[in-house]
Amino acid sequence: MFSPPFLRTRIRIAKPSIFRPRYNSLSTNTEHVEKKKKKKKKNIHKMDAEQFRAAAHSAIEEIIQYFNTLPSKRVLPNIEPGYLRPLLPTSAPNDPEPWSKIQPDIESKIMPGLTHWQSPNFMAFFPAGVTYPSLLGEMYSAAFTAPAFNWLCSPACTELEIVVMDWLAQAFGLPDCFLSAASSKSGKSTGGGIIQGSASEAVATVIVAARERHVRAEAAAEGLVEDTPEWEDRIMELRPRLVALGSDQAHSCTAKGARIAGVRFRTVPAHLADNMEMRGEALRKVLEQCEKDGLEPFYLTSTMGTTNSCAIDRFGEIKAVLAEKEAWRKVWVHIDAAYAGSALLTEEWQHVAQEFAEGIDSFDMNMSKWLLVNFDASCLFVRNAVDLTNALDVTPAYLRNPSTLTTPVTDFRNWQIPLGRRFRALKVWFVMRAYGLSGMKAHIRNGINIGRVFTDLVKGREDLFEIVTKPAFGLTALRVRGLGENVSNGTVSMASSGAITKKVCETINARGEVFLTSSVIDGVTVIRVVSGNPMAAEEYVRRAFDILVGVSEEVLAEEKTKHEQNAKN
Amino acid sequence: MFSPPFLRTRIRIAKPSIFRPRYNSLSTNTEHVEKKKKKKKKNIHKMDAEQFRAAAHSAIEEIIQYFNTLPSKRVLPNIEPGYLRPLLPTSAPNDPEPWSKIQPDIESKIMPGLTHWQSPNFMAFFPAGVTYPSLLGEMYSAAFTAPAFNWLCSPACTELEIVVMDWLAQAFGLPDCFLSAASSKSGKSTGGGIIQGSASEAVATVIVAARERHVRAEAAAEGLVEDTPEWEDRIMELRPRLVALGSDQAHSCTAKGARIAGVRFRTVPAHLADNMEMRGEALRKVLEQCEKDGLEPFYLTSTMGTTNSCAIDRFGEIKAVLAEKEAWRKVWVHIDAAYAGSALLTEEWQHVAQEFAEGIDSFDMNMSKWLLVNFDASCLFVRNAVDLTNALDVTPAYLRNPSTLTTPVTDFRNWQIPLGRRFRALKVWFVMRAYGLSGMKAHIRNGINIGRVFTDLVKGREDLFEIVTKPAFGLTALRVRGLGENVSNGTVSMASSGAITKKVCETINARGEVFLTSSVIDGVTVIRVVSGNPMAAEEYVRRAFDILVGVSEEVLAEEKTKHEQNAKN
Repeated sequence: MFSPPFLRTRIRIAKPSIFRPRYNSLSTNTEHVEKKKKKKKKNIHKMDAEQFRAAAHSAIEEIIQYFNTLPSKRVLPNIEPGYLRPLLPTSAPNDPEPWSKIQPDIESKIMPGLTHWQSPNFMAFFPAGVTYPSLLGEMYSAAFTAPAFNWLCSPACTELEIVVMDWLAQAFGLPDCFLSAASSKSGKSTGGGIIQGSASEAVATVIVAARERHVRAEAAAEGLVEDTPEWEDRIMELRPRLVALGSDQAHSCTAKGARIAGVRFRTVPAHLADNMEMRGEALRKVLEQCEKDGLEPFYLTSTMGTTNSCAIDRFGEIKAVLAEKEAWRKVWVHIDAAYAGSALLTEEWQHVAQEFAEGIDSFDMNMSKWLLVNFDASCLFVRNAVDLTNALDVTPAYLRNPSTLTTPVTDFRNWQIPLGRRFRALKVWFVMRAYGLSGMKAHIRNGINIGRVFTDLVKGREDLFEIVTKPAFGLTALRVRGLGENVSNGTVSMASSGAITKKVCETINARGEVFLTSSVIDGVTVIRVVSGNPMAAEEYVRRAFDILVGVSEEVLAEEKTKHEQNAKN
Repeated sequence: MFSPPFLRTRIRIAKPSIFRPRYNSLSTNTEHVEKKKKKKKKNIHKMDAEQFRAAAHSAIEEIIQYFNTLPSKRVLPNIEPGYLRPLLPTSAPNDPEPWSKIQPDIESKIMPGLTHWQSPNFMAFFPAGVTYPSLLGEMYSAAFTAPAFNWLCSPACTELEIVVMDWLAQAFGLPDCFLSAASSKSGKSTGGGIIQGSASEAVATVIVAARERHVRAEAAAEGLVEDTPEWEDRIMELRPRLVALGSDQAHSCTAKGARIAGVRFRTVPAHLADNMEMRGEALRKVLEQCEKDGLEPFYLTSTMGTTNSCAIDRFGEIKAVLAEKEAWRKVWVHIDAAYAGSALLTEEWQHVAQEFAEGIDSFDMNMSKWLLVNFDASCLFVRNAVDLTNALDVTPAYLRNPSTLTTPVTDFRNWQIPLGRRFRALKVWFVMRAYGLSGMKAHIRNGINIGRVFTDLVKGREDLFEIVTKPAFGLTALRVRGLGENVSNGTVSMASSGAITKKVCETINARGEVFLTSSVIDGVTVIRVVSGNPMAAEEYVRRAFDILVGVSEEVLAEEKTKHEQNAKN
């Protein structure tokens, strides 16, 4: 099987050139292949250094042009599902195509199908920015490609990552325990940071780590010995009782992470009366219910900046409740600060980071949202790295290397779900240096200020809109008032407001000038507006507000007409 | 909490420029901030389009130069663990730094710590290549940054991915069931392909999908209803009995995937007598033992091209055994072809793909190993996409969009562990077009041929070396003969061979001229040699062979001297 007849022929290979496959230099003594070769020779185009230089220069111009023209582009594409397939061949080309044939297809075929997350008119979900220094990082990262699963696989990948994660932890004012030992003031930290692909991947990772920490501790306390059948049986017996928790405002990735880890998931209800922040009292109720049901809570996602409304859970209350019982003290607390964590850069928010000095096991934020590094760059900090490696290290002989065995090097594959990893630290390094902490802080403050401008505009039209949750971190969640609502006399029409708010959002997105997200918060349908990518600016939220007002008035007028006609009939 | 005093001041924002944060345009009416601002203004450097153009051109020259000089570079770095930290500041700079200050640090600080996977002297692990068209793909992907978790988030990301995965499935001769419905001959395929980050991520993903398929089917057969407490309890009760299987030659990511999914893992032994291929008989024994132990096998990793020696499991035998019992027919069979799957491009290997027409649930290969696309690009093909979405879809309201609800669009977040995803299809598209299928095939054949050249050289020194497993897909696994071994009279010294082989590999790697991997196969210590990155060529494996011979003779002479001295004393 390993040696098919075709390849048993004697093959001479011509002197190789640099960085290209030598597919035009294969030659064999079989007639069949000779014929093929002749046909091929004519058609072979490979991209050499000169061609790459020209192609890359052209790509750079197209990229610059892309960013320059973004503000005038429709932010949402104007296509139907399935638009692309008819534009492309049904199979890959047999013969190589020159870049001059490939590049124009980006403009003609890909561009029409892009949603422009970098547009200043993108105000949906959360921002996911890219900047020029970050792009340079991606270029070098690709050039130095190494799936650096262990230290020796490319030491610079691991070592730069440890350093820049320390830089970031310091800049956020994270407690000493989240820095690597080398950077920690005590010199004794057992934690540190790692760049993961996404906040959802980070959550799945820490749920698995928390699950293993929990069952391993129980099995060990019972005197069982690792790697014995009894240990395995006991661990399997313990796992089905485990339950992961998060507020009902926690990102869906906690539910998904629990599914992946094969554990139960329960939500802690949050309410508008508390601005959708998870409260200690609500958590206690769920913990007690779990006990009644014979379940063991082992993990909690607590959020700084919830997806719906950027609420900040009441960390102090949560920690106080978890301290009440021995069993609850064992719960792994993860802070999901995927978006809002970036604000920790600014002095005015660093008091939040101080709350993580005790009782918090892990903290994650995405530079790839608000902090000028393009996706992927999710920065996960853990208090005890051994909690990750105990769960995720299954080292076989062929992945060991002398440095790993004899010196204190970090093999990041044991801190994450995948084995291989990209050299993401380069783009983080470039961005932190090109912007400096001062530039990064200014960017964050700018985003918060733009949000405040928008909030003020909304407040100026109390007749049309109500702000549903406290605006925070540049995000405003509002509803369009229903038919017959009247601020002055306190009339409310929530049912009508829900349908109208949803329709307003859908109408705006269908027109594609700005992109907003609608959601439901504690039963109230809202439109979320958040503008924090690198191009964000006041003028665009002013324009978005004008569009919002126009469409709302339009939809309200239509609804009113419908309502009146219904009343007539 | 959401509105710290510092930011309550009135803030004016200057007219924005394109694609840069306006951190120099913040102004407030507080004296304190005015002072700060003045200090800042002086130091602000941001990267604008012109600066990016210059930086990117310079980066491109450096990248071209990097590839051009790779063959003469030491492949392994000559540094000690911890080399980088002393070279870098202890914290991020406060003020922005110009690119002219950043770029030189790549050469002076990063380069010395790189392991050069693109070097033609890299013959360790498996190749992880990068090519110029792939690099262009990364540039555009970063420019178009969108964490495209659902279709609307950037339709082109999803749609191009479906098309290029179909192209690839066709090019591999994969059975119809692994193409999307639109490309399948029957028009009725329920499967398709997705680009994941790594083969290990793909394995974790399918183990979770297999686990859910298994327990969901059992719970449903018992008449339980989804989303009820009884359903959840029953599923939790069923999971601890589940066991994932793989041969003892399967990549460690199966053991890790089982750990992540919280299920047991058992290995099927493979032996040198069978060239380390998993046999049906050995699988049957393990299946029967599982039944005796009250366990339910639900998943099997079967490998095309094992990590140690590129063995191909006996798919026919495995499928025949699994067909023997109703319970066994439910086992999810995953083909891990991370490295060797690329060979399916060539006609002479496509008979293997035909074996997947029945009884195989998923197939994964990494273009990011041998197929000219840089890491990350792991191509996972599944027979029934709904197996993935049943396990991984936990859709909350705010992630729904009209297209998802009303039209047949694919939301790839439900096919994978993370939520967000990069636009990886671009680099796959560029590579498939720039090389053409003919160019890609020639590259694969070149790699196989280079391997054959190396194998022949090894065979020419039977006095020094023994080839341990059948060379395949360019990989040769050999051992250095032990002291006192003699081919002509059949003397063997395995103990001595193991220590010497390991020492030879360590010595070669310590010198850093070539990078090889040592491993242990069925108790035999081997050196694996595989050279298939885009720069690979015959001259480099010839040089590697000379080094191997030289070091082996050196180590053997040393050992002999030691041995003789010991005998004297």
